[in-house]
Amino acid sequence: MRNLAMLMDFYELTMSNGYFYNEDKDTRVVFDVFFRKNPDGGGFSIFAGLEQIIDYIQELHFTSEDIQYLREQGIFHKDFLTYLEQFSFKGDLYAFREGTIMYPNEPVITIVAPLIDAQLIETYLLTQFNHQSLIATKARRIKCAAQGRGVSDFGARRAHNVDAALYGARACYIGGVDSTATVLAGQKFGIQVSGTMAHSFVMYYKDEYLAFQKYAQMYPDATVLLVDTYDVLKSGVPNAIRIAKEVLEPMGKRLKGVRIDSGDLAYLSKKVRVMLDQEGLQDCNIVLSNSLDEYTISSLILQGAKVDSFGVGERMITAKSEPVFGAVYKIAAVEEDGIFEPRIKVSENVEKITNPGRKEVYRVYNKDGKAIADLLALKDEKIDCSTSFSYIDPKEPWRVRKFEDCTVKKLQKKYIENGKKVAELDSLEEIRAYVSKQLEEEIWEEEQRFENPHTHYLDMTPDYYHMKMKLLEEVSK
Amino acid sequence: MRNLAMLMDFYELTMSNGYFYNEDKDTRVVFDVFFRKNPDGGGFSIFAGLEQIIDYIQELHFTSEDIQYLREQGIFHKDFLTYLEQFSFKGDLYAFREGTIMYPNEPVITIVAPLIDAQLIETYLLTQFNHQSLIATKARRIKCAAQGRGVSDFGARRAHNVDAALYGARACYIGGVDSTATVLAGQKFGIQVSGTMAHSFVMYYKDEYLAFQKYAQMYPDATVLLVDTYDVLKSGVPNAIRIAKEVLEPMGKRLKGVRIDSGDLAYLSKKVRVMLDQEGLQDCNIVLSNSLDEYTISSLILQGAKVDSFGVGERMITAKSEPVFGAVYKIAAVEEDGIFEPRIKVSENVEKITNPGRKEVYRVYNKDGKAIADLLALKDEKIDCSTSFSYIDPKEPWRVRKFEDCTVKKLQKKYIENGKKVAELDSLEEIRAYVSKQLEEEIWEEEQRFENPHTHYLDMTPDYYHMKMKLLEEVSK
Repeated sequence: MRNLAMLMDFYELTMSNGYFYNEDKDTRVVFDVFFRKNPDGGGFSIFAGLEQIIDYIQELHFTSEDIQYLREQGIFHKDFLTYLEQFSFKGDLYAFREGTIMYPNEPVITIVAPLIDAQLIETYLLTQFNHQSLIATKARRIKCAAQGRGVSDFGARRAHNVDAALYGARACYIGGVDSTATVLAGQKFGIQVSGTMAHSFVMYYKDEYLAFQKYAQMYPDATVLLVDTYDVLKSGVPNAIRIAKEVLEPMGKRLKGVRIDSGDLAYLSKKVRVMLDQEGLQDCNIVLSNSLDEYTISSLILQGAKVDSFGVGERMITAKSEPVFGAVYKIAAVEEDGIFEPRIKVSENVEKITNPGRKEVYRVYNKDGKAIADLLALKDEKIDCSTSFSYIDPKEPWRVRKFEDCTVKKLQKKYIENGKKVAELDSLEEIRAYVSKQLEEEIWEEEQRFENPHTHYLDMTPDYYHMKMKLLEEVSK
Repeated sequence: MRNLAMLMDFYELTMSNGYFYNEDKDTRVVFDVFFRKNPDGGGFSIFAGLEQIIDYIQELHFTSEDIQYLREQGIFHKDFLTYLEQFSFKGDLYAFREGTIMYPNEPVITIVAPLIDAQLIETYLLTQFNHQSLIATKARRIKCAAQGRGVSDFGARRAHNVDAALYGARACYIGGVDSTATVLAGQKFGIQVSGTMAHSFVMYYKDEYLAFQKYAQMYPDATVLLVDTYDVLKSGVPNAIRIAKEVLEPMGKRLKGVRIDSGDLAYLSKKVRVMLDQEGLQDCNIVLSNSLDEYTISSLILQGAKVDSFGVGERMITAKSEPVFGAVYKIAAVEEDGIFEPRIKVSENVEKITNPGRKEVYRVYNKDGKAIADLLALKDEKIDCSTSFSYIDPKEPWRVRKFEDCTVKKLQKKYIENGKKVAELDSLEEIRAYVSKQLEEEIWEEEQRFENPHTHYLDMTPDYYHMKMKLLEEVSK
């Protein structure tokens, strides 16, 4: 396993050195991971990356080479470096279950740990959270646009390096994508791999029919032919049909599919469908690829493109339309005399004000099982669902509101306690199934549309709201 | 070192299995790596990632676990798997020097290798080339916008996972960025690391003055204070000034800088400059950060923002405005009876037609040393600069044109021969210096502007042009 201890921003170390020097290193603090905006103007996001975060935290240590490098920087206290040499994470981690549908401004992960422990893990936590959540959320949009058709991840060559291809494939799968072309992701995560031929295969043999023939003889049960190397309608598809008739049918096999990777995909797919059907190849699938995303896929389907599945590359693996997931890691409380005192960041931008303190996040369901809001409460506040209960919408705090006939579910669970894993993680298949289940059963369709989706409510209990307001007043003084 | 053999698209293996079965595996072929469009509508791109590509090719091998995984897929020939188990790359790699300014449609890397060898390395080559070239090119744009001011990479937490942070920092440095916050990149590549404090440091101590005081006492020679946790003008900067007077000056030290990370950066920086200057802190730098890129930086400077350096995060490390670098890997020739026969891809899209054959790329310089065009020639064609020589601009092939008073430079160099490295690579510092040298001395300013840059010419020798046209005619028949 790679040692990723040094994947951190330098300021984590300059601050920690300061905390160490000032004897603050053992003070317990609370940090929350949250984000401020769903990508692509969407109505929700998908939480992904938890497994890698938990692995990282448990493995975290500094090698003697790491310490030597830090010593050479000439600014760290000798005793701090000795401390780092023996460092392992000693705090607690609470998090949503991986695959949970998540919304802005709620703490998806909460770290309760000694100050230095909490500070040192910031960068990796955010990198992993941001990357995988970004891609899982994007992949879901694309899978949703495909309206039940297959989607395969073809993105490795345009990913932002190896990890982006590998963990990106994992995140795509969580988002609902069916398979990946990236062998390493198949090997490491057990995701179904798929892939047939590139243009180079056809060009190598020069003669398209010959290339198709060699491929079909090799893979008679899985012959998918790339038909756009020379001319889709005049050469590629006629040759593919000949292969079906002359090579596969005599073996008792059927042509599985053709793939079109350039040109006007809507037009070509309709023409190709007719050509195949006329030859009795109704069961031959049409696969489309070439810079697709949720918008082009929606448009193709709207135009009546005849398509059975999509190969999606660069625009999914980089989340091209919005390639940044902006989760942050903010201190929310500091332990003073055994009590977690809340901290708030006011900042120059109103939207950057944080939700302070140790808290609990609930998802509130109506009697049909639909998630109608998320709710922030003080950590040990009792939520009594047996009767109606008050809440405050922070955007309209003057109104009195009540949840009636509702149930609630705690979203955070403790995964690490005193540095040790205390809860089992879901398997990748379970995570993926959980995403689907929530979107099919719990999350409003109105939050899932692309245009002007409904904004999920993040409400507060009156006690939590008043704590926050009091703190804001204090800080503004 | 991580074994990255399995970071490939599955079709590399299905095709290679086919080549093996058809006894084509040892046929030598030529593949070119090229791209079709500079990102962000720019006039040039920067080639980065060569060192990692060469390391990968030399290390490439399949472990027994890899072979076992492939065997389980149930479609690969037993002898092919045995062959893979003993596989090492046996071909040649030609490439531009890393850091070379490059343009669309010219072969930046050329692989001449047995067919399977050439096919198997496709995905990793493209991933590394695309990612690092993307970020280096973006970073240069940002550095250029900063007009001589410092730029530091703050991007790790928004990078697309660990490798994107690490190799992205390398690419930023190649592009001209001055330092990185990513410790791992400092350790691995010797890039200067930088970093001071996060909001959490101020929030932990609650009292901003106290937090600043602790930081200044710890790092009196490098005190850069983050002034926007509560209120820049009313709290952050007044406290920073007090630190300069009360903590640093008594130690004979100066306040090195303040950083503003939110709010109206143009407005605030001007106000802050006045406040600092009035207190005799003219030497205190102002650092700005918060979702910056070449456009916001240009705008800040245009507005007269008072700024000495920029911390640039998400928009550089993800190349947010255009996060895909679209380099491709296309077969250009196949050896038949000792001669490389050219191959061409016609496709449904005219712009996807490839440049066929084994070829040489030259950069053509005028007598002032300015690069006026790049030139594609047949591999063994003689270019005689002692006299004027003809060329064809493929966009206007009917005109007769001549280069006069010019010199040419071959852009590709052989780095790997029969699988072994045969040329030394430049150091990271040399690569970075080479980028600057070209842009300052050789590349027209008109190609470097952001709006409607001059399009660099890619010309062809008459012999090369006619070979391509002949091939196109043959294929269209």
